[in-house]
Amino acid sequence: MRRKFQVHILGSSAATPTSLRHTTSQVLAYNNKYFLLDCGEGTQMQMRRLKLPMMKIDHIFISHLHGDHYLGLPGLLFSLHLLGRKKDLHVYAPAGMQQIIEVQFTLSQLVPMYKVTFHELTAGGQQIYEDRYLTVETMEMEHRIQAFGFLIKEKEMNRNLRKESILKYKIPREQMAAIKDGADLLRSGGKTIPNHEITEAPPPPRSYAFCSDTSYTEKFLNQIKGADLLYHEATFLHDKAAIAAEKTHSTTIEAATLAQKAGVKQLLLGHYSARYNDLELFTEEARQVFPNTLLAEEGKVIKVGEE
Amino acid sequence: MRRKFQVHILGSSAATPTSLRHTTSQVLAYNNKYFLLDCGEGTQMQMRRLKLPMMKIDHIFISHLHGDHYLGLPGLLFSLHLLGRKKDLHVYAPAGMQQIIEVQFTLSQLVPMYKVTFHELTAGGQQIYEDRYLTVETMEMEHRIQAFGFLIKEKEMNRNLRKESILKYKIPREQMAAIKDGADLLRSGGKTIPNHEITEAPPPPRSYAFCSDTSYTEKFLNQIKGADLLYHEATFLHDKAAIAAEKTHSTTIEAATLAQKAGVKQLLLGHYSARYNDLELFTEEARQVFPNTLLAEEGKVIKVGEE
Repeated sequence: MRRKFQVHILGSSAATPTSLRHTTSQVLAYNNKYFLLDCGEGTQMQMRRLKLPMMKIDHIFISHLHGDHYLGLPGLLFSLHLLGRKKDLHVYAPAGMQQIIEVQFTLSQLVPMYKVTFHELTAGGQQIYEDRYLTVETMEMEHRIQAFGFLIKEKEMNRNLRKESILKYKIPREQMAAIKDGADLLRSGGKTIPNHEITEAPPPPRSYAFCSDTSYTEKFLNQIKGADLLYHEATFLHDKAAIAAEKTHSTTIEAATLAQKAGVKQLLLGHYSARYNDLELFTEEARQVFPNTLLAEEGKVIKVGEE
Repeated sequence: MRRKFQVHILGSSAATPTSLRHTTSQVLAYNNKYFLLDCGEGTQMQMRRLKLPMMKIDHIFISHLHGDHYLGLPGLLFSLHLLGRKKDLHVYAPAGMQQIIEVQFTLSQLVPMYKVTFHELTAGGQQIYEDRYLTVETMEMEHRIQAFGFLIKEKEMNRNLRKESILKYKIPREQMAAIKDGADLLRSGGKTIPNHEITEAPPPPRSYAFCSDTSYTEKFLNQIKGADLLYHEATFLHDKAAIAAEKTHSTTIEAATLAQKAGVKQLLLGHYSARYNDLELFTEEARQVFPNTLLAEEGKVIKVGEE
């Protein structure tokens, strides 16, 4: 069984919420860890409604300082304090996020019981997070203000020992770790069995690229090549391409074109302008260019690497 | 027909929202005007859901700078800009609100298309708003940080001319305004008809007192005497009176006691701790002291002065 790697959609609306759609926020669940990607107004309520464990979020990534991507953060941080959090929390965001949060903690005369570390994002695609299984790197969006995407990549796994080889060669426990790392099996008498005969390749590492907000750009095309899942904003249908460009947003066709050029496996659209009620048109248009396209919708869960 | 004077409940939860309850926010609708009392996270979504006209809000009153009472304000102000508002907006709030808003407008590189005037609330009960029909004055709450209540009072109306007197005395149009103001009717030959014989008293002016957050205090008792509707926070049931006092909040019995001492006509409870699911207990307890007690609940509309 592969480790859990899935995206929960908390909000899919651009700029202003509608009566049905929240602004941008996603929870990425990997194994038993939870990451937050953007935090629009009402994110803490959405986490409660969708039964996502607020207290298990240790890392929050904020793409840019437009309200629809961060306005839920102060409330979430206040609530974590009120709920008794003690564990450190990390916020990765453009310069200014710390000031927005700290002025509010100061004015409410509240000293959080847990430590918040702000990691200021800087230009250029950079690795900003690493743990045993994952890395997160930034991508540079093309937007009215500095904006970042986030590429979450599973690390290359070790090779797996074949069960039948363990039995056949009676592989000693003390050699197993080295063999998984690529070493050959050393047998008594100085003989060796080549690694590839006793191991098999691990499943290919999976990746999720979160790209919002941006106009059409190929600046980060190399980073997202072959990604399992690409979330790309599609604020407008393609007849509004001129408005999209003017507002530094993208259309369905533009998102799909990038997905196709990058050879990703699946495309997830979101960040729909409040003017649209019928989202079916978004998939219809995008699928003309890139058939494997899904819609981000509140409450939906998408498994990365499973089509 | 009397002018519309009603309170719409947008949020009734204390401190942290629950999956069903939003944090504090109320819309006061008077005649064709709309006022916002507090603005917890998600207020703009609640206004959409409850079909309240966001663009018609010209005056926003913020009781204090705890997140559950103002976190929806930045998003509301951003949205008003995005929706094309041009009309001036007034925000009445404790010192610091302006800084919280302005740092966010600056960092998002957004210059609102409308003017926001911040009116800084200062200690002591003071009149902060007046129009043709209403005044709003502050009340001093007793809370961990400086907090204000708001007393919305209808002005004393002019006396009404009795229809039968108009006919009987053939009251000339040019005297009517003076008579409504209290003058006697001047007749030819120097005779007068006393005002009270030709006019009748207007209906008594109505008032709404919004008191949140506060521990039990009689500091503003004189201001709310005889109010038609008193909203008073009741964060806890009365078995938690010690916790309420420690956190500078109130219980059901405390809210009801104040309502009873002030001789108000109706009590509206709200600001319930997230720990409570069953709110029936709140009315049960309060009604032991003050029978005419209602619960604030999302979507409810309460007419001021109608029991």
